Amino acid sequence: MSKHGPASEFELIARYFAPLARAYPGAYGLLDDVAVISPASGNELVVKTDTIVGGVDFLPDDPANLVARKALRVNLSDLAAKGAIPRAYLLDLVLPNTVDEPWIAAFVAGLAHDQAEYGMHLIGGDMSSTSGPITIAVTAFGEAPIGRIIRRGGAQRDDTVFVTGTIGDAALGLSVLRTTPSALDAASTAFLVDRYRLPEPRVTLGPQLIGIATAGLDVSDGLVADLHHICEVSRLSAVIEARSVPLSPAARAAMAGDPRCLATALTGGDDYEILFTAPPAATARIGELSRLYGVPITPLGRMTGVSGGEEPRVVVLDNLGQPLRLASEGWTHFSSP
Amino acid sequence: MSKHGPASEFELIARYFAPLARAYPGAYGLLDDVAVISPASGNELVVKTDTIVGGVDFLPDDPANLVARKALRVNLSDLAAKGAIPRAYLLDLVLPNTVDEPWIAAFVAGLAHDQAEYGMHLIGGDMSSTSGPITIAVTAFGEAPIGRIIRRGGAQRDDTVFVTGTIGDAALGLSVLRTTPSALDAASTAFLVDRYRLPEPRVTLGPQLIGIATAGLDVSDGLVADLHHICEVSRLSAVIEARSVPLSPAARAAMAGDPRCLATALTGGDDYEILFTAPPAATARIGELSRLYGVPITPLGRMTGVSGGEEPRVVVLDNLGQPLRLASEGWTHFSSP
Repeated sequence: MSKHGPASEFELIARYFAPLARAYPGAYGLLDDVAVISPASGNELVVKTDTIVGGVDFLPDDPANLVARKALRVNLSDLAAKGAIPRAYLLDLVLPNTVDEPWIAAFVAGLAHDQAEYGMHLIGGDMSSTSGPITIAVTAFGEAPIGRIIRRGGAQRDDTVFVTGTIGDAALGLSVLRTTPSALDAASTAFLVDRYRLPEPRVTLGPQLIGIATAGLDVSDGLVADLHHICEVSRLSAVIEARSVPLSPAARAAMAGDPRCLATALTGGDDYEILFTAPPAATARIGELSRLYGVPITPLGRMTGVSGGEEPRVVVLDNLGQPLRLASEGWTHFSSP
Repeated sequence: MSKHGPASEFELIARYFAPLARAYPGAYGLLDDVAVISPASGNELVVKTDTIVGGVDFLPDDPANLVARKALRVNLSDLAAKGAIPRAYLLDLVLPNTVDEPWIAAFVAGLAHDQAEYGMHLIGGDMSSTSGPITIAVTAFGEAPIGRIIRRGGAQRDDTVFVTGTIGDAALGLSVLRTTPSALDAASTAFLVDRYRLPEPRVTLGPQLIGIATAGLDVSDGLVADLHHICEVSRLSAVIEARSVPLSPAARAAMAGDPRCLATALTGGDDYEILFTAPPAATARIGELSRLYGVPITPLGRMTGVSGGEEPRVVVLDNLGQPLRLASEGWTHFSSP
């Protein structure tokens, strides 16, 4: 493909990707067909794969280095929420021929930045061409003590529901990007767009929650939908208060301008914060972890029993204690309209 | 997306994909965000990821169950060539909204068939939507004794070059599919097309080659290109004889009709046979393995030294012992035209 100039797939791998694998012996410098990996003694490997697609999960003109970091971070976020420490990743890069070498260079610079930040290594992958949009599959490997990862199904009745950071920024950021001109001030706009483009996976906090959190996951589908996932597998319901949901000043500014933004925040997705449950007795320890790791952790409500014959559900109470009606629980790729 | 009818992503996963994960505890029934995996004591995990894209690696009207099996098998082929025993896989499925539920059902039936055939389990994955073609990334996990996989870089001077099965069928099959009407008889056409659509990874033979093969890989880019990969990493050249390259009767029939088919066979790719090197002393043992596993294994030539200052290269000799000139070594996704 002429847009790639004189560089073949092998040359691109040698020039851009092999340096990302240099420090990991089992990657064989990307000069072999496979990689080898083993967990440390007493640990197991925790694996997660996630694909992001241009025009669906990121915008075609998003900067390549941010696209790379988002592709990596959405997977790191899952590892963190499960309590795993990140180690390595595989990259499947599917590119249309409109992508040129400077795009690849910027993409790789983004990966290099985040590898250093999170202590990960590229250990293998694949490059393919497509007639469609840029498509990036990352498979991330972490480690956790055998049998100890934080599952979806462990929540107990009367556990408190906690969430890290702030909720809704990414969904509002995407909404702002799609609405021009926006009524929102420039600083708030920039903050929200940045939160959409670049999640901050809670990789240092996550492993500390093993033995404390009874259930957990990262908020990717939307706060309500993801809490519903915990409810379904734990066979419990949950009641949370809308006014307890932690919001950034920028999100509050957006909501002041348009009250519908609350629903966007609760159901929008892409937050990549950790949503978890823990017994009330753990509250003090969770406060300590919040201070120690500099990560806000906010209680939202609690887990409740499911009455006979009912399905587990999530109830969001408004300021008057009345259940909110939400049109949609959150993002799903293949739902019917 | 209406084409998916009433089924959401979660329903599709529960209905079609969760049964593929049922027998593997670390997959958590696909009800969690991650999977866990550990090698047996004394083993390490061997990982490989490969993406296939509609219109590039398979044809848009290829049957869904064959597409699924090809997506799995191209990865199994790498594991086999490295001596690893297959265990599990992750699946990233990126689908345009023209794909309907019967397609997914047929795709899953193909996965189920090959899982049973190769003793693998689905342990996780991701579904995404795209405006582009069907794109399928598989990450396969195998196991091999620690430090023993068959690498690209271990070939020694005077080692014999061997290849399993027959070469060129898949490339000729693709060529036949693209040339209508074909001069080839119907049985040969069907055989070649089948070899293109459904590789037969050498999963039982591969692990037996540990300790025998000095270097090896699977033939995916093309016989000459893949032998060149071994040469580059082993810092040796290779000399093989065109007349020694094992050809199926169907490939011979194609070549009788068009002598250019020889070049297609040597450079075409998608064979998914194992190409390996071994010392001459191993020849008898290799013959035993061939009989024991019912896999033809053919010597093609040998590894030679590289003269000072030269780059490693692959020389293919014709019937008169003269080097053949090949226009292209093999398939590469991003080569310049």
